[in-house]
Amino acid sequence: MPDKLTEVIEELALANRILAHEGVLDAFGHVSVRHPHDPNRYLLPRSRSPLLIEPDDILEYTLDSEPVKPPKVHLYAERVIHGGIFLARSDVMAVCHHHAPAVLPFCIAGKPIEPVFHLGAVIGEHTPFWDQHDEFGDTNLLVVKHEEAASLARALGQHSAVLMNRHGATVVGGSLKELVSRAIFMCQNAEYQLRALALGTPDRLRPGEIRLAGAISLMPTVVTRTWEYWSMRLAASGALPPRRKAAKAAPIRAAARRKAKRKR
Amino acid sequence: MPDKLTEVIEELALANRILAHEGVLDAFGHVSVRHPHDPNRYLLPRSRSPLLIEPDDILEYTLDSEPVKPPKVHLYAERVIHGGIFLARSDVMAVCHHHAPAVLPFCIAGKPIEPVFHLGAVIGEHTPFWDQHDEFGDTNLLVVKHEEAASLARALGQHSAVLMNRHGATVVGGSLKELVSRAIFMCQNAEYQLRALALGTPDRLRPGEIRLAGAISLMPTVVTRTWEYWSMRLAASGALPPRRKAAKAAPIRAAARRKAKRKR
Amino acid sequence: MPDKLTEVIEELALANRILAHEGVLDAFGHVSVRHPHDPNRYLLPRSRSPLLIEPDDILEYTLDSEPVKPPKVHLYAERVIHGGIFLARSDVMAVCHHHAPAVLPFCIAGKPIEPVFHLGAVIGEHTPFWDQHDEFGDTNLLVVKHEEAASLARALGQHSAVLMNRHGATVVGGSLKELVSRAIFMCQNAEYQLRALALGTPDRLRPGEIRLAGAISLMPTVVTRTWEYWSMRLAASGALPPRRKAAKAAPIRAAARRKAKRKR
Amino acid sequence: MPDKLTEVIEELALANRILAHEGVLDAFGHVSVRHPHDPNRYLLPRSRSPLLIEPDDILEYTLDSEPVKPPKVHLYAERVIHGGIFLARSDVMAVCHHHAPAVLPFCIAGKPIEPVFHLGAVIGEHTPFWDQHDEFGDTNLLVVKHEEAASLARALGQHSAVLMNRHGATVVGGSLKELVSRAIFMCQNAEYQLRALALGTPDRLRPGEIRLAGAISLMPTVVTRTWEYWSMRLAASGALPPRRKAAKAAPIRAAARRKAKRKR
Repeated sequence: MPDKLTEVIEELALANRILAHEGVLDAFGHVSVRHPHDPNRYLLPRSRSPLLIEPDDILEYTLDSEPVKPPKVHLYAERVIHGGIFLARSDVMAVCHHHAPAVLPFCIAGKPIEPVFHLGAVIGEHTPFWDQHDEFGDTNLLVVKHEEAASLARALGQHSAVLMNRHGATVVGGSLKELVSRAIFMCQNAEYQLRALALGTPDRLRPGEIRLAGAISLMPTVVTRTWEYWSMRLAASGALPPRRKAAKAAPIRAAARRKAKRKR
Repeated sequence: MPDKLTEVIEELALANRILAHEGVLDAFGHVSVRHPHDPNRYLLPRSRSPLLIEPDDILEYTLDSEPVKPPKVHLYAERVIHGGIFLARSDVMAVCHHHAPAVLPFCIAGKPIEPVFHLGAVIGEHTPFWDQHDEFGDTNLLVVKHEEAASLARALGQHSAVLMNRHGATVVGGSLKELVSRAIFMCQNAEYQLRALALGTPDRLRPGEIRLAGAISLMPTVVTRTWEYWSMRLAASGALPPRRKAAKAAPIRAAARRKAKRKR
Repeated sequence: MPDKLTEVIEELALANRILAHEGVLDAFGHVSVRHPHDPNRYLLPRSRSPLLIEPDDILEYTLDSEPVKPPKVHLYAERVIHGGIFLARSDVMAVCHHHAPAVLPFCIAGKPIEPVFHLGAVIGEHTPFWDQHDEFGDTNLLVVKHEEAASLARALGQHSAVLMNRHGATVVGGSLKELVSRAIFMCQNAEYQLRALALGTPDRLRPGEIRLAGAISLMPTVVTRTWEYWSMRLAASGALPPRRKAAKAAPIRAAARRKAKRKR
Repeated sequence: MPDKLTEVIEELALANRILAHEGVLDAFGHVSVRHPHDPNRYLLPRSRSPLLIEPDDILEYTLDSEPVKPPKVHLYAERVIHGGIFLARSDVMAVCHHHAPAVLPFCIAGKPIEPVFHLGAVIGEHTPFWDQHDEFGDTNLLVVKHEEAASLARALGQHSAVLMNRHGATVVGGSLKELVSRAIFMCQNAEYQLRALALGTPDRLRPGEIRLAGAISLMPTVVTRTWEYWSMRLAASGALPPRRKAAKAAPIRAAARRKAKRKR
C-alpha cells in the first residue's frame, strides 16, 4: 500500500539528485515541494548538497519556514525563499533555488533569458530580475530574512522564474516534475541563447508560440519520457537515492489509518 | 541464421544510443530506418528517450506514420516527420530529428551551417532552413500534422539536412550508418564553425572539396572505424542495448519462411 | 586516538585530489599546508600529479623550502612558492598554485578577475597580477628561485590570490578547507565573468557585498556541505586517497608523546 | 628480460589511447613512432580509432609507407603523412596527425596558434600553415599521395607542428613522450588563446621565454609526472591497452637471444 507522503518524499530526493546530475544544482541550491496533505506545510531537505539528499534528510516546515519538529541537523540558511513563495503563490507546488552555470552569466550581465527554442517556452514570456541591493543595501546576497523572501516573491509575481542579480535564480512549478523540466529547459535555453549571440541576433519565440509550446513539458508522453531519461542517467552514474527508512513512524501511521477506515 | 529484420532493428536501437551518447540526441529526438523488406514501411521506436531504446521498443509504421499494429505504448508526437520524408525521398533510408546543442545556436540565430572541415562536407553545399511559422503561424513548433511534415520535406528538398528555426534539425541518410556519421560530423562542424568565428572569418570548403570530401564517411575504412569507435564508447559507458527478444513472433515467422521456401 | 599530524596529512592528500577532480589542478599544480605543530615547517607532496597524491607522498619542508629529511623522490621544482608565502604571511595556513583552465584566459589577457557572484566574493576586492618578466627578464616562467618566490609573495601582499601572467595563479587560505573553497569558487567566478562578457557588462559586487559575502564559505553549514559534496564526488569517481601508512614512525612518536606527558 | 621493440610497441598503443582520452584524437587521427632498431622503418597501427589500439594492431612500415608484411587488415589512408615526415626529418622520432576540437577553429579561421602560457611554449615560436588546395587544387583534403605528404613535410620544415587548413594538425616529437606532451599542451594553449580573445588581446610569450619554457616538458620530473597522470586517468576509465601477444614470434626470438648470449 503506497503512502502518498513517502512517495512525495522519495520523489523529492530523486528530484534533488536529478537536478544536480543535470547540472542545475551543485554544492548549493535546494528543492522543495508543498506537503501533499497540508498546503500550509512544505518539505525541504536539511542543509546538504542536492546530489546527496536521501529521503530521511527531508524535513517538514511551516510556511514561516520553521521546522515542524525541533531539528537535530543544520538547516538551509535560505529556506525562507521556499516559505515565502509557497505563501505568496497558492498555485505553486514546488520551488527550486539554484546557481546554475548556464544562468549565472545572465544574472551577472543583467540580461534577460528569453525563450529561443520550443522547450525554452516553459519559462514564459518574461522572466523578471530581483536585485537584493535595491531594497536591502549591502548584504551577503543570501536570502535569509522573511522580508527578503517576501520581496523576492513579489518580484517573481505570477511568473515561472526570477533571476537574482549576482546570485542565481529561483524557479517554481505547478508540480515537482514540471519544476524539474522547467529548471532544466531554462538552463538549456540560456546556454543556446548565449551561444546564438556569437552568431547574430537570437530569434525569440512569438507570444503565441510561447503560450502553445510552454505546455509541451506537461504532455504525458513528454513527462514520462523525460523523467525516465533523467532517472536512468542518474542511475547509470550510481547516484540513485536510497528508499525512505523512517521505519518507526510508518507502522503507527498505517495502523491509525486502518483504525480510521474501520470506524467509517 | 541471421534475420535481416532483426539485424536492422538491433542496429536501429544501437544507432539511437550512439547518437545519444555522442551528444546529438538527449531526452528528445528520434531515429528511424526504412523497412528492409518493404519500402512503404519504416521502423521507429515507441516514445522513449533514444539512450534507452531497446530492439523491442521498435514499431513498424506505414508511410502515413500509422503504426501497423494497434500500439499499446505512447508514440512520438512528431513521427510524421519520418513518414513525410520517406514518402518524398525514395533515396532516403534513415532519418534523424534532433535538438543537438551544437546545432541549436544556428537554428536560433538563423545562420547557416557551412562545411568548414573535411568531415563536415557530409552535409553538402547547402543546408536549407524551415520556419514552421511561415506557413502555419503560431504553433507549439512540434511537427505533428501531415501537412507540416510535407512542408518540412519540401524545404529539405534534395539536401542532406534541414535546420528548423527555434526548434532543431532533421538529417537524412542513404543508410543508417551514413545517417549516424552525418549527424555527428554536422554537430562537430557546427561547433567548430561557431568557435572559429571568435577568431575571424571561417574558411568554407570549396564546392569541389565538398563533393570529394563528402564521400569520406562512406569509405569502408571509415565506416568500420567510426562504427567500432562509437559502439565501444557506448559499451564502455555500460549502455549497449539488449538483443531483440520478440521470441514468440520469430519462430512462427521462421516456420512460415521455411514453408514458403519449400513451396517455390 | 587521532593523531593531529596524520589527520592534516590525510586532509592534504584529500584536498589535492578534490582540487584536481573539480578542475582546478591537472597534471600540474600543488597544494601545501603549514605544519600543525610547527609554524616554521610546511607539508607538501613529492613531485606528483595532485589527483594521485597519497598521504605517504607528503614531505615536511622548512620555510626555506628544504626537505627536512633527505628526499628519495623528485620534489616540485616550484616548491619555493609555498615557503616564500608561508614566510611572508603568518596568517596563511595553506597555499595552492595552479593553471586552471578557467583562470588562464585572464592570466593571458592580463584582465582582472572580479567578484561577480556571491561565492566569488571569497577572492576579495582585488586580485593583483605578477609578471615574472618584469623583475627577472626571460625565464621558463617557473618560480624556482627564492627571490622569485619572494617577489611573488610581495605581489600577493595581503590579498587572497595572485594572477601570474602567462602562467597561472597562486591562492592562499587561513585553513586548508578555506583554501579549497576559495580556489574552486574563484574558478567558477572567472568562468561566469568571461561568459557574462558575451552578454554585456558584468556587474561587479559592491565593496560592502564583497566583505559580507566573502565570509559565506566559512559558515559552518557551508564548510560541512561543500566538503562532503566534493569528497563524495571524488569517492564516486573511485579516486579517494588511501589512508596514511607510515606505520613504523607513528608508534614511536606516540610513545614519545606519552613520555613527554608523564614528565610534565 | 624486456624486449625493446615490444616496449616501444606497447608504449605506442598507450600513447594512442592517452591522446584519445585527453581529447586530442577521436574516431580519427593516428600516432606513429620510428622503429627502435631501424631508422628506415616506422610503427603505426592498422586503421582503427586510437582509443581502441592494441599492441597487436601495430604494423611495421618502410619510409615509403608500405607495410613490411602483406597486411590482412585495413591501413590508414593517410599513412603517407608519417613516412613523408620520417623521411624529411631524421630528428623526428614520433608523429601525430589529428583533428582536435581545440585546434580546428584555428585551422578553419586560418589564425596562428601562438604560445600564450609556459607549457604552450612546446610548440615553438611559429607554427606554419599548409593548405592542400594551394598545390593540389580540389581534393577530399586527405593526405594520401606521396607528393602531398612531401609538400606537407616541406611546410612543417624544422617546426614542431603544422596546421592544415580546413582539416587538422600534424605534430612531431624527438621522442614519443615528447610528442604526447606537445600535442596535449598545444591543445590547451589553443583553448586558452581562443578564450583569452574574449577578454582582450592575448599576451604572447617572448622569444626568450619560448626557448626556455619550451624545454619544461622534457624535464625528468615533468615527464614522469605527466606520463603517470595521463596513464592513471586512462586506467581509471578502464581503457588501458592489453599487453602484446605476438606469442609465436617471441619465444623464437628469446631462444635466439639465449643462443647468441651463450656464443659470446
